[in-house]
Formats: sequence, structure tokens, C-alpha cells
Amino acid sequence: MAEFDLIRGYFSTLTASRDDVLLGVGDDCALMNPPADRVLAMTQDTLIAGRHFLPATDAESVGHKALAVNLSDLAAMGAEPAWALLSLSLPEADGTWLNGFCRGFAALAGEHGVQLVGGDTCRGGLSITVQLTGFVEPGRALRRDGARPGDLICVTGTLGDAALALRRLLAGEPAGGLRTRLERPAPRVTEGRSLRNLASACIDLSDGLAADLGHICTGSNCAARVLVEKIPLSAEVAAFIEESADWQPVIAGGDDYELCFTVPPDRLAAAGSLPGVACIGEIVAGEGVGFIDRAGGRLPLPVPGYDHFAS
Amino acid sequence: MAEFDLIRGYFSTLTASRDDVLLGVGDDCALMNPPADRVLAMTQDTLIAGRHFLPATDAESVGHKALAVNLSDLAAMGAEPAWALLSLSLPEADGTWLNGFCRGFAALAGEHGVQLVGGDTCRGGLSITVQLTGFVEPGRALRRDGARPGDLICVTGTLGDAALALRRLLAGEPAGGLRTRLERPAPRVTEGRSLRNLASACIDLSDGLAADLGHICTGSNCAARVLVEKIPLSAEVAAFIEESADWQPVIAGGDDYELCFTVPPDRLAAAGSLPGVACIGEIVAGEGVGFIDRAGGRLPLPVPGYDHFAS
Repeated sequence: MAEFDLIRGYFSTLTASRDDVLLGVGDDCALMNPPADRVLAMTQDTLIAGRHFLPATDAESVGHKALAVNLSDLAAMGAEPAWALLSLSLPEADGTWLNGFCRGFAALAGEHGVQLVGGDTCRGGLSITVQLTGFVEPGRALRRDGARPGDLICVTGTLGDAALALRRLLAGEPAGGLRTRLERPAPRVTEGRSLRNLASACIDLSDGLAADLGHICTGSNCAARVLVEKIPLSAEVAAFIEESADWQPVIAGGDDYELCFTVPPDRLAAAGSLPGVACIGEIVAGEGVGFIDRAGGRLPLPVPGYDHFAS
Repeated sequence: MAEFDLIRGYFSTLTASRDDVLLGVGDDCALMNPPADRVLAMTQDTLIAGRHFLPATDAESVGHKALAVNLSDLAAMGAEPAWALLSLSLPEADGTWLNGFCRGFAALAGEHGVQLVGGDTCRGGLSITVQLTGFVEPGRALRRDGARPGDLICVTGTLGDAALALRRLLAGEPAGGLRTRLERPAPRVTEGRSLRNLASACIDLSDGLAADLGHICTGSNCAARVLVEKIPLSAEVAAFIEESADWQPVIAGGDDYELCFTVPPDRLAAAGSLPGVACIGEIVAGEGVGFIDRAGGRLPLPVPGYDHFAS
């Protein structure tokens, strides 16, 4: 199969048509009409087989996740997704795999009104880079640098599910329902949009709570105290901790793709009324992230969040 | 070295500051003010070591080329470059290599007023994906589908230099001055901007003249006749053809990163007055690309342009 047929056949009609796309897949560039009264939010993330997903992951999940991790970045800024570009490196032009990949990508793109407008393909190790652009109202993007001492720290969803799933799969054990949380994360785009008037800072949890909340602290020149007993957990992760007392999957696990954000106390009620939001701690003066256990003691600092170049 | 230090240290101040960038490297997304009266042109290309460049290529050239191939796509649309995102997969965090890569990337970005606004890094095989966005006046982007029978076919620069350089390097021979043409292509952004009022169709030559002119023919429902003796050649390539009668590097070589465009006859004088532009043939009714030699005979159709998935 020729490369260009492959691109055209699989990608050109993959996703919904948007009115602001003047020219999609098939020329040297895509052409788009930017909105007149919005700021553009742009992100780009790469997934590599064996590093960001298990090589045995089914193609549909890979397609889903390649877009989901980028949607999660837009969610963390409070932006509305619009256009995607996809670069796909594949060991071989396997039609079955491509069909599955496109199904997963297209289903999630459709949910969020994203149109695939371009990109390229080449032969190589399995690797996917997605660039995603979205829109946000001027001055209303959520950033990492707005947290202030006294703000409360909140998260969406439950943490540690993906990390525990990965641990089990690597051990050759079944991961049950947690597997979906690892392979098909649901980016919190709606929640991010709702937080535009509420949050003082926001980040998505891709590298683990300790590392990502640490970025908010560094960006905002402050420290965080998290009460681990307040972190929302699935039944599976709660049972795991009950048995092992091991908080690593929850505080350093990564791949949660939930949002972690801060709110001034007078907006906590509004933030807390959003579905699936829990308050887990507070911002204080100082630096670093501390995790406090049930007895009031400090948990030992976790091993750092997943760092591709840590030695 | 931690991944985030790596990103911040090398990328955050890598390129010039643009007034339309509200937030650059360092948050979940970059934030940009789009121009009010322009269409956005977006492209994304991946370079993989051993496939798109020789593994021994110096880091500075790799940095240059990763941006150049994307600038060339914008040039082919007549667009003005603005913002880049960079995803870099590296076997190890090698400071010397990164410094060289950044030097090459930044020098070319500076020439074209491009600001690097985001991206990510991870450990893996050496691979670079760049996403580039530019601006073009509404209705004035150059496309592949506007060529009509009677239009003349033109190219910028000389063709076949990069392909001959690659052939020599792969044979263990010195490539001399041609090596620069392979490793540091000069994207024809200025020429592309000049063609906005002149060309009926345009493409950049990345996969070889036969394949890329073929895309114009397919897009425009027409055929092309090229007089090979009219194709501008460097002294080295002219000497090679004199000796070998082998036109493959010129018509099927790839990696030229020159522009190939069509103009209606009444605009040929204007197009021909642009520096380094030559007329090499004409658009006719029918389909496909034919190459006519000095004696009026047809050259055998070349092996297809570089196709990553051709079997």
C-alpha cells in the first residue's frame, strides 16, 4: 500500500467536518479560519510503544490514548478542542491495526468536536505524535502559576487506577476494570471548561500527583499539603492500599489524566459542586509537596513522577 | 538530568520572542493570539534517524532540517511562518548533542521569525516531530489543485543535489558541496510568498519531482510534460548526468526542498523574473507526468518517489 493512499484512505474522512477548516488532509498544509475573539491553545505529545503504552495494547486503545493525552492538556487550560495533526510511525502498513487505531482516534475526536486536518506517516518503531489546537477566551486560560497560600487543592475523579493497572499487567496479573482507566483515559475537557471562572491554577495529572502538583507549586512559588486520606480512590485501589499501605500508585503513579487544581476558599463550594471533584489539601507558603497520613505524619516523599531522562 | 530541566534549559529561550505568543514553553499548552485577518496554515512532519537522515548526521544539521522540512511546507502554500512545537525522542539526554541540535534549530527559526512555543521530550529512538503554524491572506494560499492545461511548470533552485549527495555518502564517497544541500536545505519561504499572486498551483519537492509534480496533476486533473534538459542542475549533478545518463537523482531523488509550481502563460514573465526560477515544462490534458529527453523521446518512468510504505 502506498503511503499516500494510506493517508488518504484512513485519515481524510476520519473525523467530523468543522466549518472553520478551509482545507484538511491532502495538501502541504491544512488551512483554518481562527476564531476572532479567542486565544489559541496548542499542545503536542508523543506516545512511544513500550514507553507510554504496553506493546500489546490493542490498536483502538492506542488511537484513543494518543488523542486523549492531548485533550487532557487542553482540559488543563480550560480550552475547547478544535484541530488535530497526527504523525504516525509504524513498523508496517497493517490495515487491521490502522483500522482499529483510526476507530479509537475518531470516536474520541467525535466526542470532542475535533477534526483531523493533517500529518504524516512513515515506517519506523511504533510511535504517535498528536498536535492539538483549541480555543479559550482571552485572559481566562487556566495556568500553573496562579495558586496562592490559603487556596484549596482539588482533583477530579479517582487517582492511582492506571498505575495499579499497569503494575498488575506488568506482573502478568489481570487488571480488571482498572485496565480501561490505563488504556482509555477520559480527558476532563468539560470539567476544565467549567473551571475557567473558579480555579486559580490547574494541571493535568500525567506524571503523578506529587510531580504535577509540584509543577503548580514551582510555578506559583508556594507549597502544597495533601491529606492522603482525602484523595478519592476506586474500590480496587482502596483495597490495594488497605492491604499494602503502599501509596505510590496514587501519589506518584502517573497516567491518571485527571485534573488537579487550586481554588480560593470562597469558590470552594462552587468547585465542590462540580461532579466528581474532591478537595484533598491546601496551598501553604514554602516549597514542595507534602503528603500527610491519617495519623498526621508525613509520608516519605515518593520516588519522582515518571521522568523519561531520570538516571 | 531531569526531563523538565532539559526542556526548560534548552527550549524555553531557544528562539526569538513573538508579540503574538502569550505563553510559551512550560505549561500544559502554549497560548497564542491569532491574527485577525489571516488564515492559519498548519503542517507537521517527522524525521527518523536512518530513514530521513543518516545516523551520522551532525546534531546541528538535524536541528536545521527538522524545522526546514516544515518551513518548506509553509513555503509551498505561500504562508508566513510563526509558531513551532517540537517533540524530540532521544536515546539519551546528551547535552552536547542537544546543544548542537538547538543551535541548528534556533538559527533557522531566527531567520524566519519562528518562536518555539512547546512540545515534549522522551527517551526512545532518535526521532523529531515538528509542528509549524503560519499565516496567509484569505483566498491566497497556494494549493495543488489549481493547475490548468496550458500553464507552464517552474521550479526554484537546482534539483538532484541532495539525492546525489545521499547516493555518494551511502557509497562511502565524499559528497563535497552537495552535502550541505542534503543536510541543510534552504526552505523557499520568500519565494513562496512571492508566488501568491502568480502561481496557479504549488508543491514543495520532498519526494522527488516525478512524485510531487504527480500530486499537482492528480489534484488538478491534468498531466505534465517536463523537458529534462530544462531542469536547472548544479555543476556536480550536470557532470554526473553527462557521465551516467542517469536522471534518477533529478526526477525521483527527493529531499530537494525546492518549490515546483505552475503559472498561466501571461504570468510567466513575472514568475521567471524571480531569482532562481526556471521553466521546465507545461501542463497538458490527460494524466501523469512525462519526462522528454533532448532527442524528443520519453524517459522511462522513474521508480516512484520515496514512499515509506511501498512494498
